[in-house]
Amino acid sequence: MKRYDLRSDTITLQTPQMREAMYRAEVGDDVYGEDKTVNRLEAMARELTGKEESLFVSSGCMGNLLSLMIYGGRGNEVLCANESHIIQHEIGAVSAIANTIPIIVPSVNGIIDETKLESFIRPYSYDMGKSAMIEVENTTSGLIYPIEKMKAIKEIAERHNMKVHLDGARIFNAVVESGIELSEYAKYCDDITFCLSKGLGCPVGSMLSGDKEFIHLAKRYRKMLGGGMRQIGYLAAAGIYALENHVERLKEDHENCKLIRDAVASTSWARVLTYGTNILFFTSDSYDISKIVKKFNDDGVMVLCECNACRVVTNIGISQKDAQEIANYIKSFDPESING
Amino acid sequence: MKRYDLRSDTITLQTPQMREAMYRAEVGDDVYGEDKTVNRLEAMARELTGKEESLFVSSGCMGNLLSLMIYGGRGNEVLCANESHIIQHEIGAVSAIANTIPIIVPSVNGIIDETKLESFIRPYSYDMGKSAMIEVENTTSGLIYPIEKMKAIKEIAERHNMKVHLDGARIFNAVVESGIELSEYAKYCDDITFCLSKGLGCPVGSMLSGDKEFIHLAKRYRKMLGGGMRQIGYLAAAGIYALENHVERLKEDHENCKLIRDAVASTSWARVLTYGTNILFFTSDSYDISKIVKKFNDDGVMVLCECNACRVVTNIGISQKDAQEIANYIKSFDPESING
Amino acid sequence: MKRYDLRSDTITLQTPQMREAMYRAEVGDDVYGEDKTVNRLEAMARELTGKEESLFVSSGCMGNLLSLMIYGGRGNEVLCANESHIIQHEIGAVSAIANTIPIIVPSVNGIIDETKLESFIRPYSYDMGKSAMIEVENTTSGLIYPIEKMKAIKEIAERHNMKVHLDGARIFNAVVESGIELSEYAKYCDDITFCLSKGLGCPVGSMLSGDKEFIHLAKRYRKMLGGGMRQIGYLAAAGIYALENHVERLKEDHENCKLIRDAVASTSWARVLTYGTNILFFTSDSYDISKIVKKFNDDGVMVLCECNACRVVTNIGISQKDAQEIANYIKSFDPESING
Amino acid sequence: MKRYDLRSDTITLQTPQMREAMYRAEVGDDVYGEDKTVNRLEAMARELTGKEESLFVSSGCMGNLLSLMIYGGRGNEVLCANESHIIQHEIGAVSAIANTIPIIVPSVNGIIDETKLESFIRPYSYDMGKSAMIEVENTTSGLIYPIEKMKAIKEIAERHNMKVHLDGARIFNAVVESGIELSEYAKYCDDITFCLSKGLGCPVGSMLSGDKEFIHLAKRYRKMLGGGMRQIGYLAAAGIYALENHVERLKEDHENCKLIRDAVASTSWARVLTYGTNILFFTSDSYDISKIVKKFNDDGVMVLCECNACRVVTNIGISQKDAQEIANYIKSFDPESING
Repeated sequence: MKRYDLRSDTITLQTPQMREAMYRAEVGDDVYGEDKTVNRLEAMARELTGKEESLFVSSGCMGNLLSLMIYGGRGNEVLCANESHIIQHEIGAVSAIANTIPIIVPSVNGIIDETKLESFIRPYSYDMGKSAMIEVENTTSGLIYPIEKMKAIKEIAERHNMKVHLDGARIFNAVVESGIELSEYAKYCDDITFCLSKGLGCPVGSMLSGDKEFIHLAKRYRKMLGGGMRQIGYLAAAGIYALENHVERLKEDHENCKLIRDAVASTSWARVLTYGTNILFFTSDSYDISKIVKKFNDDGVMVLCECNACRVVTNIGISQKDAQEIANYIKSFDPESING
Repeated sequence: MKRYDLRSDTITLQTPQMREAMYRAEVGDDVYGEDKTVNRLEAMARELTGKEESLFVSSGCMGNLLSLMIYGGRGNEVLCANESHIIQHEIGAVSAIANTIPIIVPSVNGIIDETKLESFIRPYSYDMGKSAMIEVENTTSGLIYPIEKMKAIKEIAERHNMKVHLDGARIFNAVVESGIELSEYAKYCDDITFCLSKGLGCPVGSMLSGDKEFIHLAKRYRKMLGGGMRQIGYLAAAGIYALENHVERLKEDHENCKLIRDAVASTSWARVLTYGTNILFFTSDSYDISKIVKKFNDDGVMVLCECNACRVVTNIGISQKDAQEIANYIKSFDPESING
Repeated sequence: MKRYDLRSDTITLQTPQMREAMYRAEVGDDVYGEDKTVNRLEAMARELTGKEESLFVSSGCMGNLLSLMIYGGRGNEVLCANESHIIQHEIGAVSAIANTIPIIVPSVNGIIDETKLESFIRPYSYDMGKSAMIEVENTTSGLIYPIEKMKAIKEIAERHNMKVHLDGARIFNAVVESGIELSEYAKYCDDITFCLSKGLGCPVGSMLSGDKEFIHLAKRYRKMLGGGMRQIGYLAAAGIYALENHVERLKEDHENCKLIRDAVASTSWARVLTYGTNILFFTSDSYDISKIVKKFNDDGVMVLCECNACRVVTNIGISQKDAQEIANYIKSFDPESING
Repeated sequence: MKRYDLRSDTITLQTPQMREAMYRAEVGDDVYGEDKTVNRLEAMARELTGKEESLFVSSGCMGNLLSLMIYGGRGNEVLCANESHIIQHEIGAVSAIANTIPIIVPSVNGIIDETKLESFIRPYSYDMGKSAMIEVENTTSGLIYPIEKMKAIKEIAERHNMKVHLDGARIFNAVVESGIELSEYAKYCDDITFCLSKGLGCPVGSMLSGDKEFIHLAKRYRKMLGGGMRQIGYLAAAGIYALENHVERLKEDHENCKLIRDAVASTSWARVLTYGTNILFFTSDSYDISKIVKKFNDDGVMVLCECNACRVVTNIGISQKDAQEIANYIKSFDPESING
């Protein structure tokens, strides 16, 4: 059997066309603002988000960190879901580098319960931190924030002079699935980061967008972190290609994920935990899921085991035909075989 | 009516005997290790806790912060209850100064649910923080940690090479109430801080205790924070007096708190939320508790309104007779009067 | 021979009158702003410096640190002399806690050469820190800044939108020696800290003064560092007593230091390095100064050996008669005796 | 006249062959360690430096920062020249992110005077930072550290249990000029970073090398800073190409720089300040150098004005013929023309 890599959408390889675009990129020294391809990509991000300025950064982590450095900082609190990437997967940069204390607010599968948010916002007090910002992640493990929730959160933030940072690493999955424009989502945050890698299929990079003053500071802090790069237009060229050609095709990932999810749901031994856009989590009540994951990998269906669940992420490397094969594999999977 | 200050046990004034002890203190330059009174107090704390070394620090906040700087730090996580002082009342110093990311674990009224703790401890992973320490607060808002819970938490910590910091600001309330020695509680942590102010009635100061290497570092970091002081023996003398004379009398505070709690419980309009040792929280389902708190204060019963509850803390300034008066006041309190 | 402690002016013991003032102090919970003695001391500092607000802090180190946290911080530079206390004796708190990078500017014996200062102030540049503040220490190892230098430095700072922090740990030595009022010195800085311990003879404490916004932030950060204390009025009472009774007497320390300096200068084996107000550094070109220091200490003249020099600091514990004895001791000191 | 870009060696565009190498790169997800091209480049750097492990990082700034985070940190001091990049051009990251205090030691044109170094290393003291590491930059503004100096510095460091970080952004310029192998230079440091961009002509990237434990931590901190990237093999392919093809050709840059330097030296109006390998600084005693720089730029000779000097950096974009043209231009330059 062929190998299918469903571990993440970060593992995607670049298409020949994207490589070609990178190859032909016109570049310059971005530190001097002279890389025309970067400049063009930043202009595209500006337009797509409707924000004043945009900045290419080397990762979603860096985008999140810059926002936390600017809107958070010493004595400031960021309200966020426990499931959020900044809590789970960024080695505590929020506190270690941005000096910001996270305050965990009630959430369901990573989506903040906005009705309970306000009780976590502090009045001014001599001995308390300042509620400075709220962090929202959309999609969060594939699940889309209803736009009304984002709106409600932004309204709460404004009422309390707080900022909203949108970790939109996979926001384009939300965009194509919901039919809501990126600029509409971006209305309900002060700054937003989205990834060019992941579903869009670029090798590296994220775009951070916000107002002029924010991006001015972000550029300085990017340099401070060592994230200022020179002829980075090669990566920017991939980003431009992706924004022009890879957004709509995310729907295919979603359809493929649905195929696989339906296959999982049809079995007697598996139970879907969460599912949305291109990400599926399932477990088994009767079998050891870590052993199932191992067997899947042995059989060429590469998936991850996370928190006692099997994680499946469809991506540009998985065609509809592949997804059908995988679905068939799951349907005919014999859970007893893990003990073999 | 006389004024009774039940806002906190931090507001306590010093007894004439304690003032006398301070007046007569033999002092020296503590930075050179030449303050004999400080040295004596540190020896007492060492003995009481059974730890290798002790250090006088200017506050419980500083004690907590030093522990977080030493056992936490960049890339490290501290597991703690959301209700803990380091999350709620230290302006984010855990992250701003100690660069540590707090991970909130399930708790009931500030007491960690040790059965769920282990699932929050991370395996080693490239992109995750390190589970470095657990923070326990005993008492937490007056409630005592059962010693078995502390033991269980320490065992979990050891299994995962983690440290346990005990914020024992009010540990002596637990000691006199439970009959368990301080050195017994201290067995289940790597370092412990207890307050001389609060229930013990000193003006200022906390004792931080741990192993030699820990206290050596703590002393350096105390200086770094600006907490190194010179002829601090005056404050240490109060501490010695308190440890010798004010520990047992905490029972009186507990009895007084119980008197007041019973009074609250006997009314038709109030509902006890939590109660333990010298701290009581209650609210009202039928009346606006903030207005009740205001009326109490107007009538000379000084209490605080916190998170939609009335906070009552008995302390050395409240005699048994005072407590009886306060109980009577509450019993005869007409909640309708708040609208007058 | 009696023992004379000339190691520092931090080792001074409190006079009976100061102890009495501490004993009788009216206190309260300073965290609630209810300690009347602290409030009175802060009002005095406000008036003496001519600044809007003042704050009691536990040490000069903490005062310096708070200023660096507020006027410095991430991406900001503090220009200062290499000899300054923040570089030499605060364990790198400027960088470790305040996240500020120090830029060393030319100085002679700790006094900044203001004519060369401006060339160290950066224009705005993408990849450079921001020249945010200048730190001046007066006195610096006993030497007084000429007021014109301070004025010139402040003018340079203002021209570049920079702040000036005055580490005035021993500013009162400058005040009584120069006859220039504290408020006059304070004009040429944005914030100032002065010590109550050291020459003024208090056990603990420094006063930080600046504008309202600065002190508001300083109060929060003091708490964040663990420097918020409760019934601290005992220490404040010492401060009030010192400001009322111990300022003028610093002249005696200066006269005593001069006596000792003249004795040193009269010997054939010693050479004065720097001398001003109450601090003297001398060395020997022909003998091992560390051995001389050791012999002095053995003989009851307690001094320190620092950077290949003998440090002598006169203080409230040294009377004129003591100084005469010490001078005589030095005059008759046989340097050959160190080899005995 | 054609435009010649001598502002820096960071502005270099990639050769067609390097583009081709990037185009053909085999890539994978470097976060999972699956990018074969990155792995190959890291193996090359390991071999070239003789260190245990190597890591691709997005910039020399990030390499320096990681070293400072690991070998420096809270309470630790880095001894370095005032001219060093970490002081002048990294926005204070040494203090803001790595929490390390820089101690400036005597240097001439950025080269540390190793005979004075030891007096800046502190003995252990309660109130002093720890001398933890020494930073050496080779080349520093084009000047090569004599290998004996590096050896002497390393010996001093070892005697005091300190680490040496070598900022070798342009170490290959030193290698080809001195004929000393990289692995020889690398012997005299604990970790080393060298740049693939700059003289080697890559678009982006630096290699950080050190022992296993160091690189393990560096990898975690790289992620924490947001510097973890995915299919980064495209950039690594450029690095491999450069190490195989562009090292020797640095000699051409040096020859070209010498040509230009000789031209400058032959004029009546210019004075060479420093010169070495591919970098030249000169000024004018009789004319305004900033105006001269402006005229040069207007005429197509792009140079920078820094600290009252003209900076010239030869690079892969400047052929021998170009250098000759530039030399001729300078020789025939009429300084009076700046007033036209």
